[in-house]
Amino acid sequence: MTGTVHGVGVGPGDPELMTLKAFRLISGAEVVAYPILEASESFARSVAAKVMSPAVKEIPITVPMSTRRAPAQAAYDRGSDAIATELEADRDVVVLCEGDPLFYGSFMYLHSRLSGRFRVEVVPGVNSVTACAAALGRPLVARNEALTIIPGTLPEAELEHRIAGADAVAIMKVGRHLEKIRRVLARLGRAETAGYIERATLANQKVLPLGEAPGPAPYFSMILVGRKVDPWL
Amino acid sequence: MTGTVHGVGVGPGDPELMTLKAFRLISGAEVVAYPILEASESFARSVAAKVMSPAVKEIPITVPMSTRRAPAQAAYDRGSDAIATELEADRDVVVLCEGDPLFYGSFMYLHSRLSGRFRVEVVPGVNSVTACAAALGRPLVARNEALTIIPGTLPEAELEHRIAGADAVAIMKVGRHLEKIRRVLARLGRAETAGYIERATLANQKVLPLGEAPGPAPYFSMILVGRKVDPWL
Repeated sequence: MTGTVHGVGVGPGDPELMTLKAFRLISGAEVVAYPILEASESFARSVAAKVMSPAVKEIPITVPMSTRRAPAQAAYDRGSDAIATELEADRDVVVLCEGDPLFYGSFMYLHSRLSGRFRVEVVPGVNSVTACAAALGRPLVARNEALTIIPGTLPEAELEHRIAGADAVAIMKVGRHLEKIRRVLARLGRAETAGYIERATLANQKVLPLGEAPGPAPYFSMILVGRKVDPWL
Repeated sequence: MTGTVHGVGVGPGDPELMTLKAFRLISGAEVVAYPILEASESFARSVAAKVMSPAVKEIPITVPMSTRRAPAQAAYDRGSDAIATELEADRDVVVLCEGDPLFYGSFMYLHSRLSGRFRVEVVPGVNSVTACAAALGRPLVARNEALTIIPGTLPEAELEHRIAGADAVAIMKVGRHLEKIRRVLARLGRAETAGYIERATLANQKVLPLGEAPGPAPYFSMILVGRKVDPWL
Protein backbone atom coordinates (compact mmCIF):
# COMPACT_ATOMS: atom_id res chain seq x y z
CA MET A 1 0.00 0.00 0.00
CA THR A 2 1.23 3.46 -0.88
CA GLY A 3 -0.21 6.90 -0.15
CA THR A 4 -1.81 9.37 -2.54
CA VAL A 5 -0.49 12.76 -3.58
CA HIS A 6 -3.18 15.45 -3.56
CA GLY A 7 -2.28 18.56 -5.55
CA VAL A 8 -4.61 21.06 -3.89
CA GLY A 9 -5.37 24.55 -5.19
CA VAL A 10 -5.73 27.00 -2.31
CA GLY A 11 -7.22 29.77 -4.46
CA PRO A 12 -6.07 33.33 -5.13
CA GLY A 13 -5.26 34.51 -1.61
CA ASP A 14 -8.32 34.98 0.62
CA PRO A 15 -8.39 31.79 2.72
CA GLU A 16 -12.20 31.80 2.45
CA LEU A 17 -11.82 31.15 -1.28
CA MET A 18 -10.43 27.69 -0.57
CA THR A 19 -12.87 24.98 -1.60
CA LEU A 20 -14.57 22.77 1.00
CA LYS A 21 -12.50 19.89 -0.41
CA ALA A 22 -9.23 21.79 -0.02
CA PHE A 23 -10.24 22.63 3.55
CA ARG A 24 -10.99 18.98 4.34
CA LEU A 25 -7.76 17.67 2.82
CA ILE A 26 -5.48 20.35 4.27
CA SER A 27 -6.96 20.28 7.77
CA GLY A 28 -6.75 16.48 7.85
CA ALA A 29 -3.26 16.22 6.35
CA GLU A 30 -0.43 14.51 8.20
CA VAL A 31 2.09 15.73 5.62
CA VAL A 32 2.03 18.86 3.44
CA ALA A 33 4.56 19.94 0.81
CA TYR A 34 4.94 23.25 -1.03
CA PRO A 35 7.47 24.91 -3.28
CA ILE A 36 9.16 27.98 -1.88
CA LEU A 37 11.34 30.41 -3.79
CA GLU A 38 14.70 30.82 -2.12
CA ALA A 39 14.73 33.75 0.32
CA SER A 40 10.97 34.25 0.26
CA GLU A 41 7.84 32.87 1.86
CA SER A 42 5.50 30.29 0.34
CA PHE A 43 2.34 32.11 -0.75
CA ALA A 44 0.32 28.88 -0.88
CA ARG A 45 1.42 28.00 2.66
CA SER A 46 0.45 31.44 3.95
CA VAL A 47 -3.08 31.01 2.53
CA ALA A 48 -3.46 27.57 4.11
CA ALA A 49 -1.57 28.21 7.36
CA LYS A 50 -4.55 28.65 9.67
CA VAL A 51 -6.16 25.47 8.39
CA MET A 52 -3.15 23.16 8.89
CA SER A 53 -2.92 20.93 11.94
CA PRO A 54 -0.22 22.05 14.41
CA ALA A 55 1.21 18.52 14.24
CA VAL A 56 1.55 18.46 10.46
CA LYS A 57 4.87 17.45 8.92
CA GLU A 58 6.04 20.02 6.37
CA ILE A 59 8.15 19.39 3.29
CA PRO A 60 9.27 22.76 1.92
CA ILE A 61 10.74 22.43 -1.57
CA THR A 62 13.23 25.25 -1.87
CA VAL A 63 13.63 26.33 -5.47
CA PRO A 64 16.73 28.45 -6.17
CA MET A 65 16.34 31.90 -7.77
CA SER A 66 17.89 31.29 -11.16
CA THR A 67 16.90 31.44 -14.80
CA ARG A 68 18.89 28.25 -15.36
CA ARG A 69 16.80 25.15 -15.53
CA ALA A 70 19.03 22.53 -13.94
CA PRO A 71 19.06 23.88 -10.37
CA ALA A 72 15.25 24.08 -10.29
CA GLN A 73 14.96 20.59 -11.76
CA ALA A 74 17.30 19.27 -9.05
CA ALA A 75 15.13 20.94 -6.38
CA TYR A 76 12.00 19.23 -7.72
CA ASP A 77 13.90 15.92 -7.86
CA ARG A 78 14.78 16.24 -4.17
CA GLY A 79 11.23 17.37 -3.31
CA SER A 80 9.59 14.48 -5.12
CA ASP A 81 12.01 12.06 -3.43
CA ALA A 82 10.99 13.39 -0.03
CA ILE A 83 7.32 13.06 -0.96
CA ALA A 84 7.89 9.55 -2.33
CA THR A 85 9.38 8.48 1.02
CA GLU A 86 6.11 9.44 2.74
CA LEU A 87 3.97 7.77 0.07
CA GLU A 88 5.94 4.54 0.35
CA ALA A 89 5.19 4.54 4.08
CA ASP A 90 1.49 4.72 3.11
CA ARG A 91 1.07 8.34 4.16
CA ASP A 92 -0.87 10.72 1.90
CA VAL A 93 0.79 14.01 1.01
CA VAL A 94 -1.06 17.26 0.30
CA VAL A 95 0.83 19.62 -2.00
CA LEU A 96 -0.29 23.22 -1.49
CA CYS A 97 -0.64 25.15 -4.76
CA GLU A 98 -1.37 28.84 -5.39
CA GLY A 99 -4.63 29.32 -7.29
CA ASP A 100 -5.16 26.16 -9.31
CA PRO A 101 -2.52 23.38 -9.44
CA LEU A 102 -2.47 22.99 -13.23
CA PHE A 103 -2.83 26.66 -14.23
CA TYR A 104 0.70 28.10 -14.49
CA GLY A 105 1.63 26.14 -11.39
CA SER A 106 4.85 24.44 -10.37
CA PHE A 107 2.82 21.40 -9.32
CA MET A 108 3.37 19.97 -12.81
CA TYR A 109 7.03 19.38 -11.95
CA LEU A 110 6.00 17.12 -9.07
CA HIS A 111 3.13 15.62 -11.05
CA SER A 112 5.45 14.53 -13.86
CA ARG A 113 7.88 12.96 -11.39
CA LEU A 114 5.34 11.11 -9.25
CA SER A 115 2.36 10.24 -11.43
CA GLY A 116 3.89 7.14 -12.98
CA ARG A 117 4.54 5.47 -9.62
CA PHE A 118 1.87 6.82 -7.30
CA ARG A 119 -1.75 7.85 -7.30
CA VAL A 120 -2.00 11.60 -7.95
CA GLU A 121 -5.28 13.48 -7.47
CA VAL A 122 -5.75 17.12 -8.37
CA VAL A 123 -8.22 19.39 -6.57
CA PRO A 124 -8.92 22.44 -8.75
CA GLY A 125 -8.94 25.87 -7.13
CA VAL A 126 -10.22 29.35 -7.90
CA ASN A 127 -7.66 30.91 -10.23
CA SER A 128 -6.43 34.48 -10.22
CA VAL A 129 -8.09 35.40 -13.54
CA THR A 130 -11.63 34.95 -12.25
CA ALA A 131 -10.63 36.48 -8.90
CA CYS A 132 -9.42 39.60 -10.73
CA ALA A 133 -12.63 39.82 -12.78
CA ALA A 134 -14.62 39.66 -9.54
CA ALA A 135 -12.47 42.43 -8.05
CA LEU A 136 -13.02 44.55 -11.16
CA GLY A 137 -16.75 43.73 -11.20
CA ARG A 138 -16.87 43.14 -14.95
CA PRO A 139 -17.77 40.09 -17.03
CA LEU A 140 -14.59 38.39 -18.20
CA VAL A 141 -16.01 36.68 -21.28
CA ALA A 142 -19.49 35.93 -22.58
CA ARG A 143 -21.51 34.13 -25.20
CA ASN A 144 -19.45 33.34 -28.33
CA GLU A 145 -16.35 35.24 -27.30
CA ALA A 146 -12.88 33.87 -26.76
CA LEU A 147 -10.65 34.59 -23.78
CA THR A 148 -6.90 34.72 -24.28
CA ILE A 149 -4.70 34.35 -21.22
CA ILE A 150 -1.10 35.41 -21.80
CA PRO A 151 1.91 36.05 -19.62
CA GLY A 152 3.17 39.64 -19.67
CA THR A 153 6.68 38.24 -19.87
CA LEU A 154 6.36 37.64 -23.64
CA PRO A 155 8.43 39.82 -26.00
CA GLU A 156 6.70 43.05 -27.01
CA ALA A 157 6.08 42.08 -30.63
CA GLU A 158 4.57 38.72 -29.69
CA LEU A 159 2.39 40.30 -27.03
CA GLU A 160 1.10 42.77 -29.61
CA HIS A 161 0.44 40.09 -32.20
CA ARG A 162 -1.51 37.93 -29.76
CA ILE A 163 -3.60 40.75 -28.32
CA ALA A 164 -4.40 42.19 -31.78
CA GLY A 165 -6.28 39.04 -32.76
CA ALA A 166 -7.99 38.46 -29.43
CA ASP A 167 -11.40 39.24 -27.92
CA ALA A 168 -11.05 39.55 -24.14
CA VAL A 169 -7.53 39.25 -22.75
CA ALA A 170 -6.08 38.52 -19.32
CA ILE A 171 -2.41 39.42 -18.98
CA MET A 172 -0.75 37.53 -16.11
CA LYS A 173 2.60 38.11 -14.40
CA VAL A 174 2.59 41.85 -15.08
CA GLY A 175 5.30 42.79 -12.57
CA ARG A 176 8.15 44.69 -14.19
CA HIS A 177 6.49 44.37 -17.62
CA LEU A 178 3.83 47.01 -16.85
CA GLU A 179 5.22 49.75 -19.11
CA LYS A 180 5.74 47.39 -22.03
CA ILE A 181 2.14 46.14 -21.75
CA ARG A 182 0.81 49.70 -21.49
CA ARG A 183 2.63 50.64 -24.72
CA VAL A 184 1.20 47.63 -26.55
CA LEU A 185 -2.37 48.29 -25.41
CA ALA A 186 -2.11 51.99 -26.30
CA ARG A 187 -0.89 51.15 -29.82
CA LEU A 188 -3.81 48.73 -30.26
CA GLY A 189 -6.32 51.29 -28.98
CA ARG A 190 -7.32 49.01 -26.13
CA ALA A 191 -5.83 50.77 -23.12
CA GLU A 192 -9.11 52.54 -22.34
CA THR A 193 -10.99 49.34 -21.53
CA ALA A 194 -8.16 47.82 -19.48
CA GLY A 195 -8.25 47.37 -15.71
CA TYR A 196 -5.30 46.77 -13.40
CA ILE A 197 -5.63 44.49 -10.37
CA GLU A 198 -3.02 43.87 -7.71
CA ARG A 199 -3.17 41.21 -4.96
CA ALA A 200 -6.77 40.27 -5.75
CA THR A 201 -8.86 39.11 -2.75
CA LEU A 202 -6.18 40.09 -0.19
CA ALA A 203 -6.58 42.92 2.33
CA ASN A 204 -4.20 45.13 0.32
CA GLN A 205 -5.96 44.53 -3.02
CA LYS A 206 -5.78 47.41 -5.53
CA VAL A 207 -8.11 47.92 -8.50
CA LEU A 208 -7.38 50.78 -10.90
CA PRO A 209 -7.92 51.85 -14.49
CA LEU A 210 -4.73 50.84 -16.33
CA GLY A 211 -3.74 54.47 -16.87
CA GLU A 212 -3.59 55.07 -13.11
CA ALA A 213 -1.60 51.97 -12.16
CA PRO A 214 1.64 53.02 -10.51
CA GLY A 215 4.76 51.12 -11.51
CA PRO A 216 6.58 49.01 -10.63
CA ALA A 217 3.86 46.41 -10.26
CA PRO A 218 4.26 43.49 -7.85
CA TYR A 219 4.48 39.95 -9.20
CA PHE A 220 0.87 39.28 -8.18
CA SER A 221 -0.71 41.76 -10.57
CA MET A 222 -2.86 41.37 -13.65
CA ILE A 223 -4.36 43.40 -16.46
CA LEU A 224 -7.79 42.55 -17.85
CA VAL A 225 -8.67 43.93 -21.27
CA GLY A 226 -12.32 44.24 -22.27
CA ARG A 227 -13.75 42.83 -25.47
CA LYS A 228 -13.41 44.92 -28.62
CA VAL A 229 -17.11 45.39 -29.10
CA ASP A 230 -19.40 46.30 -26.23
CA PRO A 231 -16.41 46.02 -23.88
CA TRP A 232 -18.04 45.21 -20.57
CA LEU A 233 -21.58 44.58 -21.77
CA MET B 1 -30.73 50.78 3.82
CA THR B 2 -30.77 48.33 0.93
CA GLY B 3 -29.48 44.76 0.68
CA THR B 4 -26.50 43.44 -1.26
CA VAL B 5 -26.54 41.11 -4.27
CA HIS B 6 -23.93 38.36 -4.01
CA GLY B 7 -23.14 36.66 -7.33
CA VAL B 8 -21.75 33.38 -6.02
CA GLY B 9 -19.92 30.79 -8.12
CA VAL B 10 -20.83 27.28 -6.98
CA GLY B 11 -18.04 25.62 -8.97
CA PRO B 12 -18.13 22.96 -11.68
CA GLY B 13 -20.53 20.44 -10.15
CA ASP B 14 -19.12 18.57 -7.15
CA PRO B 15 -20.64 20.43 -4.17
CA GLU B 16 -17.34 19.97 -2.31
CA LEU B 17 -15.74 22.30 -4.88
CA MET B 18 -17.77 25.23 -3.55
CA THR B 19 -15.59 27.72 -1.72
CA LEU B 20 -15.88 28.24 2.03
CA LYS B 21 -17.25 31.71 1.24
CA ALA B 22 -19.91 30.32 -1.11
CA PHE B 23 -20.88 27.82 1.58
CA ARG B 24 -21.19 30.57 4.19
CA LEU B 25 -23.26 32.87 1.98
CA ILE B 26 -25.55 30.17 0.56
CA SER B 27 -26.22 28.42 3.86
CA GLY B 28 -26.98 31.76 5.54
CA ALA B 29 -29.10 33.17 2.70
CA GLU B 30 -32.70 34.24 3.26
CA VAL B 31 -33.22 34.69 -0.48
CA VAL B 32 -31.54 32.93 -3.41
CA ALA B 33 -32.07 33.54 -7.13
CA TYR B 34 -30.93 31.53 -10.14
CA PRO B 35 -31.58 31.44 -13.86
CA ILE B 36 -33.28 28.33 -15.16
CA LEU B 37 -33.72 27.38 -18.80
CA GLU B 38 -37.36 26.73 -19.61
CA ALA B 39 -38.27 23.05 -19.20
CA SER B 40 -35.03 22.09 -17.47
CA GLU B 41 -33.49 22.13 -14.02
CA SER B 42 -31.11 24.77 -12.66
CA PHE B 43 -27.64 23.23 -12.56
CA ALA B 44 -26.36 25.84 -10.10
CA ARG B 45 -29.30 25.16 -7.78
CA SER B 46 -28.69 21.41 -7.90
CA VAL B 47 -25.07 21.93 -6.81
CA ALA B 48 -26.09 24.19 -3.93
CA ALA B 49 -29.33 22.41 -2.92
CA LYS B 50 -28.00 20.55 0.13
CA VAL B 51 -26.46 23.70 1.52
CA MET B 52 -29.55 25.91 1.30
CA SER B 53 -31.71 26.53 4.35
CA PRO B 54 -35.13 24.83 4.14
CA ALA B 55 -36.74 28.20 4.86
CA VAL B 56 -34.98 30.01 2.02
CA LYS B 57 -37.06 32.06 -0.41
CA GLU B 58 -36.28 31.15 -4.01
CA ILE B 59 -36.45 33.40 -7.05
CA PRO B 60 -36.17 31.22 -10.16
CA ILE B 61 -35.55 33.30 -13.29
CA THR B 62 -37.07 31.31 -16.11
CA VAL B 63 -35.29 32.04 -19.38
CA PRO B 64 -37.19 30.93 -22.50
CA MET B 65 -35.51 28.57 -24.98
CA SER B 66 -35.05 30.87 -27.95
CA THR B 67 -32.27 32.25 -30.07
CA ARG B 68 -34.06 35.60 -30.08
CA ARG B 69 -32.67 38.12 -27.69
CA ALA B 70 -35.77 40.03 -26.57
CA PRO B 71 -37.53 37.19 -24.66
CA ALA B 72 -34.37 36.45 -22.65
CA GLN B 73 -33.84 40.15 -21.95
CA ALA B 74 -37.43 40.39 -20.70
CA ALA B 75 -36.83 37.42 -18.38
CA TYR B 76 -33.75 39.08 -16.88
CA ASP B 77 -35.72 42.32 -16.50
CA ARG B 78 -38.39 40.48 -14.50
CA GLY B 79 -35.73 38.60 -12.49
CA SER B 80 -33.83 41.74 -11.58
CA ASP B 81 -37.09 43.46 -10.59
CA ALA B 82 -37.90 40.57 -8.24
CA ILE B 83 -34.38 40.77 -6.77
CA ALA B 84 -34.64 44.57 -6.45
CA THR B 85 -37.83 44.20 -4.38
CA GLU B 86 -35.90 42.11 -1.84
CA LEU B 87 -32.94 44.48 -1.83
CA GLU B 88 -35.19 47.47 -1.22
CA ALA B 89 -36.58 45.66 1.83
CA ASP B 90 -32.96 45.44 3.08
CA ARG B 91 -32.66 41.71 2.42
CA ASP B 92 -29.48 40.37 0.77
CA VAL B 93 -29.90 38.11 -2.26
CA VAL B 94 -27.51 35.33 -3.24
CA VAL B 95 -27.49 34.57 -6.97
CA LEU B 96 -26.32 31.00 -7.63
CA CYS B 97 -23.99 30.76 -10.63
CA GLU B 98 -22.52 27.69 -12.36
CA GLY B 99 -18.73 27.66 -12.18
CA ASP B 100 -17.64 31.28 -11.90
CA PRO B 101 -20.16 34.17 -12.15
CA LEU B 102 -18.21 36.25 -14.69
CA PHE B 103 -16.85 33.42 -16.86
CA TYR B 104 -19.44 32.75 -19.60
CA GLY B 105 -22.16 33.21 -17.02
CA SER B 106 -25.63 34.70 -17.27
CA PHE B 107 -24.94 36.60 -14.04
CA MET B 108 -23.73 39.50 -16.16
CA TYR B 109 -27.31 40.16 -17.27
CA LEU B 110 -28.34 40.69 -13.65
CA HIS B 111 -25.11 42.52 -12.83
CA SER B 112 -25.68 45.08 -15.58
CA ARG B 113 -29.26 45.67 -14.42
CA LEU B 114 -28.56 45.96 -10.69
CA SER B 115 -25.04 47.31 -10.23
CA GLY B 116 -25.92 50.96 -10.76
CA ARG B 117 -28.52 50.99 -7.96
CA PHE B 118 -27.36 48.36 -5.47
CA ARG B 119 -24.19 46.95 -3.98
CA VAL B 120 -23.10 43.92 -6.02
CA GLU B 121 -20.37 41.58 -4.76
CA VAL B 122 -18.96 38.72 -6.80
CA VAL B 123 -17.55 35.55 -5.22
CA PRO B 124 -15.37 33.77 -7.77
CA GLY B 125 -15.73 30.02 -8.16
CA VAL B 126 -13.74 27.12 -9.60
CA ASN B 127 -14.39 27.18 -13.35
CA SER B 128 -14.90 24.22 -15.61
CA VAL B 129 -11.60 24.67 -17.49
CA THR B 130 -9.44 23.97 -14.47
CA ALA B 131 -11.84 21.24 -13.33
CA CYS B 132 -11.41 19.49 -16.69
CA ALA B 133 -7.61 19.79 -16.52
CA ALA B 134 -7.74 18.17 -13.08
CA ALA B 135 -9.92 15.35 -14.44
CA LEU B 136 -7.49 14.84 -17.31
CA GLY B 137 -4.49 15.03 -14.97
CA ARG B 138 -2.46 17.23 -17.29
CA PRO B 139 -1.03 20.74 -16.90
CA LEU B 140 -3.27 23.22 -18.68
CA VAL B 141 -0.68 25.90 -19.31
CA ALA B 142 2.80 26.65 -18.01
CA ARG B 143 5.64 29.15 -17.96
CA ASN B 144 5.51 31.57 -20.94
CA GLU B 145 2.65 29.87 -22.74
CA ALA B 146 -0.72 31.34 -23.60
CA LEU B 147 -4.06 29.67 -23.01
CA THR B 148 -6.89 30.32 -25.44
CA ILE B 149 -10.42 29.57 -24.31
CA ILE B 150 -12.95 29.42 -27.13
CA PRO B 151 -16.54 28.29 -27.50
CA GLY B 152 -17.02 25.33 -29.86
CA THR B 153 -20.04 27.16 -31.26
CA LEU B 154 -17.81 29.36 -33.46
CA PRO B 155 -17.96 28.83 -37.24
CA GLU B 156 -15.51 26.18 -38.50
CA ALA B 157 -13.17 28.61 -40.28
CA GLU B 158 -12.91 30.91 -37.28
CA LEU B 159 -12.31 28.00 -34.94
CA GLU B 160 -9.49 26.81 -37.20
CA HIS B 161 -7.94 30.26 -37.45
CA ARG B 162 -7.95 30.76 -33.69
CA ILE B 163 -6.59 27.32 -32.82
CA ALA B 164 -3.87 27.50 -35.51
CA GLY B 165 -2.21 30.46 -33.77
CA ALA B 166 -2.67 29.21 -30.21
CA ASP B 167 -0.54 27.35 -27.66
CA ALA B 168 -2.83 25.41 -25.31
CA VAL B 169 -6.54 25.55 -26.08
CA ALA B 170 -9.70 24.84 -24.10
CA ILE B 171 -12.80 24.40 -26.25
CA MET B 172 -15.99 25.00 -24.26
CA LYS B 173 -19.62 24.21 -25.12
CA VAL B 174 -18.72 21.21 -27.29
CA GLY B 175 -22.19 19.65 -27.38
CA ARG B 176 -23.39 19.11 -30.92
CA HIS B 177 -20.21 20.72 -32.33
CA LEU B 178 -18.04 17.67 -31.56
CA GLU B 179 -17.57 16.48 -35.14
CA LYS B 180 -16.78 19.97 -36.43
CA ILE B 181 -14.13 20.42 -33.72
CA ARG B 182 -12.65 16.98 -34.43
CA ARG B 183 -12.28 17.89 -38.13
CA VAL B 184 -10.54 21.17 -37.29
CA LEU B 185 -8.10 19.56 -34.85
CA ALA B 186 -7.32 16.74 -37.30
CA ARG B 187 -6.54 19.24 -40.07
CA LEU B 188 -4.23 21.16 -37.72
CA GLY B 189 -2.47 17.97 -36.63
CA ARG B 190 -3.50 18.54 -33.02
CA ALA B 191 -6.11 15.84 -32.48
CA GLU B 192 -3.56 13.45 -30.98
CA THR B 193 -2.89 15.63 -27.95
CA ALA B 194 -6.55 16.44 -27.33
CA GLY B 195 -8.58 15.11 -24.40
CA TYR B 196 -12.36 15.00 -24.07
CA ILE B 197 -14.04 15.58 -20.71
CA GLU B 198 -17.74 15.30 -19.95
CA ARG B 199 -19.49 16.36 -16.72
CA ALA B 200 -16.20 17.03 -14.90
CA THR B 201 -16.26 16.36 -11.13
CA LEU B 202 -19.72 14.74 -11.20
CA ALA B 203 -20.33 11.05 -10.48
CA ASN B 204 -20.92 10.37 -14.19
CA GLN B 205 -17.74 12.16 -15.34
CA LYS B 206 -16.12 10.80 -18.51
CA VAL B 207 -12.51 11.37 -19.59
CA LEU B 208 -11.41 10.05 -22.98
CA PRO B 209 -8.87 10.68 -25.73
CA LEU B 210 -10.67 12.84 -28.29
CA GLY B 211 -10.69 10.03 -30.87
CA GLU B 212 -12.74 7.82 -28.55
CA ALA B 213 -15.35 10.40 -27.55
CA PRO B 214 -18.78 9.19 -28.59
CA GLY B 215 -21.11 11.79 -30.11
CA PRO B 216 -23.40 13.50 -29.56
CA ALA B 217 -21.72 15.21 -26.62
CA PRO B 218 -23.76 16.72 -23.80
CA TYR B 219 -23.72 20.48 -23.27
CA PHE B 220 -21.37 20.08 -20.30
CA SER B 221 -18.41 18.77 -22.26
CA MET B 222 -15.02 20.22 -23.10
CA ILE B 223 -11.97 19.49 -25.21
CA LEU B 224 -8.50 20.39 -23.96
CA VAL B 225 -5.74 20.60 -26.55
CA GLY B 226 -2.13 20.24 -25.43
CA ARG B 227 0.57 22.71 -26.26
CA LYS B 228 2.28 22.38 -29.64
CA VAL B 229 5.69 21.60 -28.21
CA ASP B 230 6.14 19.18 -25.33
CA PRO B 231 2.34 18.79 -25.14
CA TRP B 232 1.78 17.79 -21.56
CA LEU B 233 5.32 18.29 -20.22
